[in-house]
Formats: sequence, structure tokens, C-alpha cells
Amino acid sequence: MKQYGAEFFGTFWLVLGGCGSAVLAAAFPGVGIGLLGVSLAFGLTVLTMAYAIGHISGCHLNPAVSIGLWAGGRFPASKLLPYIVAQVLGAIAAGGVLYLIASGKSGFDLAAGFASNGYGAHSPGGYSLTAALVTEVVMTMMFLLIILGATDARAPAGFAPLPIGLGLTLIHLISIPVTNTSVNPARSTGVALYVGDWATSQLWLFWVAPIAGALLGAAVYRAIGSKD
Amino acid sequence: MKQYGAEFFGTFWLVLGGCGSAVLAAAFPGVGIGLLGVSLAFGLTVLTMAYAIGHISGCHLNPAVSIGLWAGGRFPASKLLPYIVAQVLGAIAAGGVLYLIASGKSGFDLAAGFASNGYGAHSPGGYSLTAALVTEVVMTMMFLLIILGATDARAPAGFAPLPIGLGLTLIHLISIPVTNTSVNPARSTGVALYVGDWATSQLWLFWVAPIAGALLGAAVYRAIGSKD
Amino acid sequence: MKQYGAEFFGTFWLVLGGCGSAVLAAAFPGVGIGLLGVSLAFGLTVLTMAYAIGHISGCHLNPAVSIGLWAGGRFPASKLLPYIVAQVLGAIAAGGVLYLIASGKSGFDLAAGFASNGYGAHSPGGYSLTAALVTEVVMTMMFLLIILGATDARAPAGFAPLPIGLGLTLIHLISIPVTNTSVNPARSTGVALYVGDWATSQLWLFWVAPIAGALLGAAVYRAIGSKD
Amino acid sequence: MKQYGAEFFGTFWLVLGGCGSAVLAAAFPGVGIGLLGVSLAFGLTVLTMAYAIGHISGCHLNPAVSIGLWAGGRFPASKLLPYIVAQVLGAIAAGGVLYLIASGKSGFDLAAGFASNGYGAHSPGGYSLTAALVTEVVMTMMFLLIILGATDARAPAGFAPLPIGLGLTLIHLISIPVTNTSVNPARSTGVALYVGDWATSQLWLFWVAPIAGALLGAAVYRAIGSKD
Repeated sequence: MKQYGAEFFGTFWLVLGGCGSAVLAAAFPGVGIGLLGVSLAFGLTVLTMAYAIGHISGCHLNPAVSIGLWAGGRFPASKLLPYIVAQVLGAIAAGGVLYLIASGKSGFDLAAGFASNGYGAHSPGGYSLTAALVTEVVMTMMFLLIILGATDARAPAGFAPLPIGLGLTLIHLISIPVTNTSVNPARSTGVALYVGDWATSQLWLFWVAPIAGALLGAAVYRAIGSKD
Repeated sequence: MKQYGAEFFGTFWLVLGGCGSAVLAAAFPGVGIGLLGVSLAFGLTVLTMAYAIGHISGCHLNPAVSIGLWAGGRFPASKLLPYIVAQVLGAIAAGGVLYLIASGKSGFDLAAGFASNGYGAHSPGGYSLTAALVTEVVMTMMFLLIILGATDARAPAGFAPLPIGLGLTLIHLISIPVTNTSVNPARSTGVALYVGDWATSQLWLFWVAPIAGALLGAAVYRAIGSKD
Repeated sequence: MKQYGAEFFGTFWLVLGGCGSAVLAAAFPGVGIGLLGVSLAFGLTVLTMAYAIGHISGCHLNPAVSIGLWAGGRFPASKLLPYIVAQVLGAIAAGGVLYLIASGKSGFDLAAGFASNGYGAHSPGGYSLTAALVTEVVMTMMFLLIILGATDARAPAGFAPLPIGLGLTLIHLISIPVTNTSVNPARSTGVALYVGDWATSQLWLFWVAPIAGALLGAAVYRAIGSKD
Repeated sequence: MKQYGAEFFGTFWLVLGGCGSAVLAAAFPGVGIGLLGVSLAFGLTVLTMAYAIGHISGCHLNPAVSIGLWAGGRFPASKLLPYIVAQVLGAIAAGGVLYLIASGKSGFDLAAGFASNGYGAHSPGGYSLTAALVTEVVMTMMFLLIILGATDARAPAGFAPLPIGLGLTLIHLISIPVTNTSVNPARSTGVALYVGDWATSQLWLFWVAPIAGALLGAAVYRAIGSKD
């Protein structure tokens, strides 16, 4: 139960911190943090939580990561479902707290997107479904490669939260314009549920593509990283 | 006495560095550091001091942190009052030095805010009292979760200043638009005293909410992080 | 073969992440990541891969680095050619994926540069051939000095990916305006091939100068860093 | 001799990287790195060199640091002069290389400042001599406090380059608008010599204030950080 609690609060932090910085601070007039600040925020949610709760639950905070770690032989199938449930519930709770805060300013409008992920007309830069699909698959594949490599017994001990957290920052630096960056079905779900409409009808891609990418990443690491 | 001296200089640095970057550099014409630079500055004051004086005083630099560590069973009640006094005095000294520097430019005006925290009409983005209260409570709660987790005996040794410092950066990336970000009653006090007026009359929230959040964070970590 | 696979995927990530952030996100309207974000992205590709595959291939991701490590007595000549081939193929694969994503937005135009390196009329800031040559030689020389020093047996173990990755960030912070920053012939090749024209006809400089700089860097470290 | 060579190249990198990013990239149209990027660049020069040459010379790169370490009982008086000479020569060499690169663009003008430090009419934000003096003294004092604390035998081993490098970033985030930030007489000298005029006539302050601040920092750390 402590593990599920840790995943709940960790994913709560990922969505509140990442989507919160996007909704509240990205376009603040004159001194906004921009996509660079949002990228940094997403990465730092993982970096901070990996040091804070890594010793409790492993700090996945992401159904695609849990599935990729299972495919890589690092996580038991029996815990997949409760981990994913805890992650999605934490993400939804974060969406609620963010709504409570953001709506405390007059003129707040959920229809502006609430940091939801999208493609086509709902891609921040107007990128096609194909571009979105390729982006989410490849980004999640590389994310799992980083996670599996940095937590390999042969990698230096204690450092893994740095490349994993900053790897998520890097992924956002590349791909926010394409899909607003998901690589995490819980993160996408946690805000899309409040927006409804297009955000929920496009949500399938942000479950399918990250999970496919995570499975690919696990396969690549098995090919290049196995010890035998 | 050395511990109190370390807390004095550490909190001096937190306020001079964080509020100083905001007052002097955030909106510098054309090349200003913006809210992203200010967020980085606040976090780096803690990161640098945690490595510099962590072995002397534990580097709290924040009454809410001292109280949260006490609630988490990591800090003796007998030292709470002198730590908090040293922190507040260091913050006030930093406010004085910052005033001395900032007023060395013609046109400087304390009424522009001097990096004070506020809500409602004095929130940078015009956020309500409720939004400010929720923000400060939740942000400090998560800050304590990071601190208690990263300094847990099971977390990798030596790394804690990185997630704690960068966690404060993250908190600022999210919440400067709401309250100018406190999560630290000493930081709020150190500049509000020079502004007076609305800044001191709103100061109560930046003592109450961070302390409440810190107590919540300690309770959450007891629930998910205890070893038994 | 695992080592070559690791170099392939690592260099793929360097070009997709670095050039991808430049092409997709640098100039995004209003909230673009700018040259600072691109600099961070390039550095984080190396930082993340050094922790993920350092224990497999050493994580060179760059023909100039492989040659400099050979000159510094850290890498066998017999592996130079396969490493460089794997790096160049990974870079070209990344250029292809980036093209697939970037062309998913209407109005995309390869002629805008596709993050290619250049000098004279094709230098981002209009810098001369001489300035470009000096910049690439000196930057790569210092990059090798950082790599050779940080991986010296006397340097603290486990930390090397931080100065090496952030060193590449620093190099970009300085020199993007001059040449768009190469210091890596594979990175230059991986995008120039898609642009053709001026990008391929200027490509020679981004093989010659980084390799010359790497040899210089190895010589300097032999002079100041040898143990005897 | 190896130590002096290391200090020469390290200070060369500090000035080329820090002042180079300021001159070449800070105000690049539309996507410039701004004061935030310059602050990061200065800090990363120290972070990268501390891992690369720390085991050779201790990586001071700064006469005020060498003097502060001597005052703190960490560095022998006999090496002060050769260290300072090597630092100043490395800084001047960097100024020359930077001039060579920067002048490869038509319209380059040394009179724009060449990243020199100044006060009064030559302070970037128009700050007075008093503000400049207080800023340089206090910033260097805190820099030495960070250095002496982070390299204390009781601080975690191997991490010191992170708080020291990022501490220099923080100092720049605060004080570029006041003096363009020195805290380092070699850095000031290395560019001022090329500008001459006001830059050399104001140079005295950027020797006097950093050295005074370094002595103060050593005294503070003796008071709060001694083990007895």
C-alpha cells in the first residue's frame, strides 16, 4: 500500500508541476517561463520524486514506464494494474487541484486547453496525426532506453534520477510543439478529463503510442544492453 | 551558536539571491531573466547552501522546513525557536542589503513590490485568496515530502541538495504568478518589512499556509515513507 | 556489436534531440525555447546517454571524440572506423525521423536550414570562415579537455556525464551564432545530407575543424594532465 | 608547472565561455540566450573545469578565490603569485581569441563593452559606485563561503563542482545588471585590456572588491564552519 501511495503522490506532483507550470506560468506577460520553463518543470517533478520516493516505489509515475520496466524484466506483472490505477488517480487529483488554483483568476478558460495533449487541429504547432504518433512512439522509446540504461547495475549508483528527470526535460524541449508532449498516459488523462470534448476523443493516442514506444525501448535495450 | 550563524547566512543568501534576482534582473530590458531565471536563482540558493552548510546546521533556511522536520521526527523541538529567529534575522539582513543595492539606481521604487508575496490585488497574476492559500499549502506540503524523502537513510547519500534545491526551483516555476511564491515565512518577512502597507498586512498567510503545508507533508511522508 | 548499436542509438538521440529542438521548438511563437533551450537539449542528449549507455560503449556519439580519445590513449585504433560508421548512420537515421516529424506541419521548408552547420553567408550570425574555423577548433579542443579530465582516474567516479553533457550545453551557448555549433562531424552530416546544396558543400569544415580541435585537446591534456 | 598550465586553460575557458556567450549570443535577434544564458555559461565553465582539472590544480580560475582559499588555510602563500599570473594570462588569451571570433562579423564594435565590468555610467543598469562595491564584496564573500563549505572534509565527496559552478551562475543571475558581474579580477582584466578607456580606469574596483569579499568570506567560514 505504501508503494501505491508513493505512486499516487508522485504522479500528482508530475501533473501538478508540469501542467501547472504550463497553465499558470508559461505565457505570463513579459516574464513568462515559456516552453523551456515548462520542460524544466516536467523534468524536475521526476528528478525530485525519484530521490524522494525512489526507495519506496521505484518512482514510475507513468503507466508506460511501468509497462516498459515489466517488458524489460525489471517489474513484476502482478503490480502493473495497481501501479497504473494509483498513477491515474494521482494525475486526476492533480488536475482537480490545478483547476481549483487556475480558476481563482478571473478569465480562466478550460477551453484554452488546460495543458492537454493533442494532434492535428489540437497540436500546439498544427502537426499531423502521423507526426504526433511518430513523435510519441520515438520519444517514449528513448525515455525507456534512458531509464533502463541509467538503472542498470553497471551504471553509477545514485545518479539515475538525474538523467531520467532531465531526459524528460529534453523530451519536452523537442516535442511540446508537436503534441504538447505526453509520453505518459496518466499525465494526459489527468487533464483531458476536465476539458472533455476533443481532449478525451484524442486521448487514445496518448495511451497507445507511449505504451508502444515503451515496449520498443525495452526491446532495444535488451538488444544493446544485455550482459551476455 | 555555529548552527545559528549558518542558518543566518544561509537564509541571508536565500533572500538576497532569490528576491535579488527578481528585483534586479527579472525584467531587465530585452535580456531579462524572467520568472525562469528567478525560479532557478531561488533553487540555487538552497542547492549551494545545502552543500556549503548542510554539515553545520542541516541547512533549513525556512521556519516551515524546521517545523516540518520536527513533525517528521528529524529535528528536536528545543532548537525550533533559535533556528527560526536566526532565519528571520538573516532574511531581514538580506532585505537591507538588497535595498542598499537596488536603491543605487535612480528610479527605484519600493512600491513596485520588492519581491513581496501577496494575494488578490497583490498576486502577480491577480489570483484569489483561496487560490493563494491552496497553492502555498500544497507547494509546501510537496516541498517537505521531497526533503523528508531525499534525506531518508534509504535514499542515495550526498545527492539530497540537488532534489531539494531544484524542487524549490520547480515550486517557483509553478507558483510565482499566484503568490510570487513563498513556502517560506522568513523569505516573506525579510522583504515585506521594507514595503510595509499591504505586504505586512498580507504576511499572515505566508506564515500560516507554509506551516500548515509543512505539517501535512510530514504526515504524508509518515504514511508512505515509514519503514515498518 | 552491442557497442556499435549503442553508438548508433546514442548518436541518433543526439541529433534528434539537439537538431529536433532547434527545428521544432526554438522559434515557436511567443514561448519558443530559443538558443538557450537548444543548447540545453544538445547537452542533455549526451548527459542522458552517458548514464544510459556509458557502460556499454563509453558513449562517444561523435567521431571527433572517438579520435580525440584515441589520441589521448584511451581508445584502441581498431575500433575507430566501426564507431564512426555507427555514429554517422545513427545521425542520418535521426535526420530522417526528424524530417518525417517536421514535415507533418504545413509550411515546413528544408531550405530554412534544418539545423545545418554553416559559415559565411550560412553562419546564423554571418560570421566569416576564419571565425568559424577558430570557433570549431577551440570549442572541440576544450570539449576534449573536459572529457579527458572528467574521465581521468583521479576525478570523482560517476560524475563525468554531468560536466561532459553540460560542457556541450556551454559550447552551444557560446557558438550557435557563429556556426550553429558542430564540434561533431556526425551531427553535421546527419542533417546536411537532407538539405544538400550549401550544407553539403560546407560540410568539410565540420569534419576538419572538430577533428583538429580534438587532436589539440588531447595534446593539451597530455601536457597538463599526465601523472608523471 | 602542470598546475599553472591547468589554471591557464581553466581561466581561458571561464573568460571565453562566459564573456563569449555574452558577446556572441546574449542579444542574438529573437532567440538570444539573455542574461539567463550568460549566467548559465559562466557557471558551467567552472563546473566543467572543476571536474576536468580539479585533481590537477584545484581549479581556482580566479585570483580572489586563490586569496580566499589562502585566508581560509587551504592554499599555501608560496603559490599565490604564480597561480594569479597564470589566471590573468589565461584570461587575456581568452580575450584575444574572443576578439578574433567576434570581429569575424561585420559591424562588431569593441566600444559596445566586450563584456567588461563597470559601475555608474558603465553599469549595465546604471547602478552607482556604492551599489557596485557592495554587490561585488557581498557576492564574492558568499562565493567563498560556498567554496569553503562545499570542499570541507565533512561535505559529501565529489559534489563540490556542482554548488561552486552553479553558485557562480546564481551570482550572475543576481548581479549582471549592477556590474556585469565580476567576482573575479582575472575575468575583468581579460576583457578590459582590449576595451581600454573606461574599462581599464574602472578595473581597480574589480580587483579590490572581490579580494575584500573573499577575505570576508574566509572569515565568516572560520566563524561558522570551524570544527572546534
